Amino acid sequence: MYKCSKQRLYERIKIFSRFGETPTGGITRLSLSRADLTARNEFCKRCAALGMYISMDDMANIYATIPGDPSLPSIMIGSHIDSVRSGGNYDGVLGVLGALEAAETIVAQNIQHRHPITVVVWTNAEGSRFQPTMMASGVISGKLDKSQALYSVSTDPEDSGITFGEALEESGFKGEEYNRATGENCIAFIELHVEQGPILDRDGVDIGVVQGVCDMVDFEFTIKGQADHAGTTPMRYRRDALFAATKTIQYLHDEFDKLDPNLVYTIGKISCHPNVYSSIPDLVKFTLDARHRDPTIVESVLDIVNSIPAETEKCKVGIKETCRRGGVQFYKPYVDIVEACADELGYSHRSIYSGPGHDAQYISEIIPTAMILVPSEGGYSHCEREHTSMDSCIKGVNVLLNMILKLDAML
Amino acid sequence: MYKCSKQRLYERIKIFSRFGETPTGGITRLSLSRADLTARNEFCKRCAALGMYISMDDMANIYATIPGDPSLPSIMIGSHIDSVRSGGNYDGVLGVLGALEAAETIVAQNIQHRHPITVVVWTNAEGSRFQPTMMASGVISGKLDKSQALYSVSTDPEDSGITFGEALEESGFKGEEYNRATGENCIAFIELHVEQGPILDRDGVDIGVVQGVCDMVDFEFTIKGQADHAGTTPMRYRRDALFAATKTIQYLHDEFDKLDPNLVYTIGKISCHPNVYSSIPDLVKFTLDARHRDPTIVESVLDIVNSIPAETEKCKVGIKETCRRGGVQFYKPYVDIVEACADELGYSHRSIYSGPGHDAQYISEIIPTAMILVPSEGGYSHCEREHTSMDSCIKGVNVLLNMILKLDAML
Repeated sequence: MYKCSKQRLYERIKIFSRFGETPTGGITRLSLSRADLTARNEFCKRCAALGMYISMDDMANIYATIPGDPSLPSIMIGSHIDSVRSGGNYDGVLGVLGALEAAETIVAQNIQHRHPITVVVWTNAEGSRFQPTMMASGVISGKLDKSQALYSVSTDPEDSGITFGEALEESGFKGEEYNRATGENCIAFIELHVEQGPILDRDGVDIGVVQGVCDMVDFEFTIKGQADHAGTTPMRYRRDALFAATKTIQYLHDEFDKLDPNLVYTIGKISCHPNVYSSIPDLVKFTLDARHRDPTIVESVLDIVNSIPAETEKCKVGIKETCRRGGVQFYKPYVDIVEACADELGYSHRSIYSGPGHDAQYISEIIPTAMILVPSEGGYSHCEREHTSMDSCIKGVNVLLNMILKLDAML
Repeated sequence: MYKCSKQRLYERIKIFSRFGETPTGGITRLSLSRADLTARNEFCKRCAALGMYISMDDMANIYATIPGDPSLPSIMIGSHIDSVRSGGNYDGVLGVLGALEAAETIVAQNIQHRHPITVVVWTNAEGSRFQPTMMASGVISGKLDKSQALYSVSTDPEDSGITFGEALEESGFKGEEYNRATGENCIAFIELHVEQGPILDRDGVDIGVVQGVCDMVDFEFTIKGQADHAGTTPMRYRRDALFAATKTIQYLHDEFDKLDPNLVYTIGKISCHPNVYSSIPDLVKFTLDARHRDPTIVESVLDIVNSIPAETEKCKVGIKETCRRGGVQFYKPYVDIVEACADELGYSHRSIYSGPGHDAQYISEIIPTAMILVPSEGGYSHCEREHTSMDSCIKGVNVLLNMILKLDAML
């Protein structure tokens, strides 16, 4: 089994942690921002130094390729380098820098391979500046509409209304549509990523063998009551929107807990109006996010949400579905290779489903795809505390390297 | 029975509605702001025109007096003219302009009386710019500390840190401590006010005969959990601060509902961190306000709050008492006169306790005091929708006028 260099990976992660660094050790590297463009240039410089040839497609996805037999399709590896606001140093960028480390190992050790090997950087996976998330992989896989993406307006207050299309033109990274990864020019895509959850860390497992990405549904609840003075309005006359929200949240927990134990659901965001201690709330909004690998369980979630009466505690309850994302199953033969490589390297592993969405999920619609997860310490992610030890990171990279060489040999 | 002029009262309310008017029909007239000073000047001008003599005390309370026998103590009537942010045109100012209308009726109809009759404007009842509420009546009744009041810093972001003491010096309304109302120079204080609750309006009652002000206690709850990714963290590992808050709020409702039906309690304000749909909340804060006329019931509230375990749903629950205000009983002989006057005028009335605090509550500590409430339409208050019809207002003013004449005759 081949091994990559932990030291080189560490140095690379250190360097990329400077692009968009926050004073408190995190990263704000919004898509196509100055920090993102700096990181992209550094990526290209390093790829060119390895003798890789670089192309960009019309969504500014970057493909850096170690040449192989030009008649064969590429084996593609990579992830994204944009981040959320005050995010960490591993989400996304580990998948890119890990892929680059695998490529450097192949070049440095002069490992023979037949297929071209492409390291990809997907544009705007996080959607933190331009909605939606996983934008560029979504467009090239036909799951998102390109013209809608181009007109997506920045949510960054410092941007004064720039669209994604405008940022793309200015970036210097916009290439040609014919450079896109397709099912013809690409035979496999493998994404290495941090788990962004606590399971691998708590179970002390090295490698997550990702079976697929969970089905997801999001809702916004709006509860309308009546504002009145807290000191005067008898309880029997009240239409307290926060109390009605409390009842509704409790109902959701009670009913969801009767479903499958692998269902995860979260009421993460709540607002209250007028939100003063001496007024009865007249308007409360909250979100619900629910995920499960099995779409029939997610259908049960929908049934429960739809069973909520239009009136609770004399308040009107409005429910809007804000997002529905179908889950995917990754390409089983490749998933089995992830497991086999972990085994052969002597790493502990477990089967896992991804709760968060990933570019791999969209790409799996056009190219056979698999994912490798490594632990997130404490499960922290999308925050500055996000951390994965170099020992954990390099195990993921080693699985990635051996996997592409195995694919190269068998395909 | 004497009657006041509805037309004059209406015109007065219209004029004062201009001082601090909002574009949407409400009032923002924070204490000692430009709008408040304009209203104070207008008040003084009108009092002077009626031949009243005006004095101010060291807290800028204004006393405008129709002379009587100088050897007799005053009968004092009035309220406040400051407002909350985006408040209405009746809270406080009705009590001042109603008192002024009673005074004008006495002067215009040359009604004989022995006691001096004083219309008072209390400074900073609302506490919207300088905390706490009912500041000036609190200081002169010895319930609040004057030096603390003077150092109270403005909460208005446009004020850049001015203190109440500085605003007082600049106002031109700071007078002498020896002008304060006391138990020696004053024999009665009667405050007319809008109910700020729905009871009188829903019951179709003209006059609220106020027995006292409720005992009140406020708390802030802080629930600490653990932020994690909504899509990955299994339910059994979660420490969801919002779910723990929901459970705690439900517990409070369940337990409080076993107490007296006249108890009112409100969870009015809630905040949630990080407050994004895809993160499990790690910090939720909410307020609790509870009021009852009977301090033993409020003690039961405290017992229930103190019975909450320090840990709920694996989250830490912190509880801080933020305010405790003792209730008061008004001076029974005067309360009976409010009722008698309403009867003699043919107005329907009912006994009521005030949930909100009023200057009358502090003043009752040093001077025998009573209050008259008139209905708030729909119970709206501290908002621009606040409204009381002129028919309702004038009934309150007529009770006030006849009451002071009755007091003048009997004292």
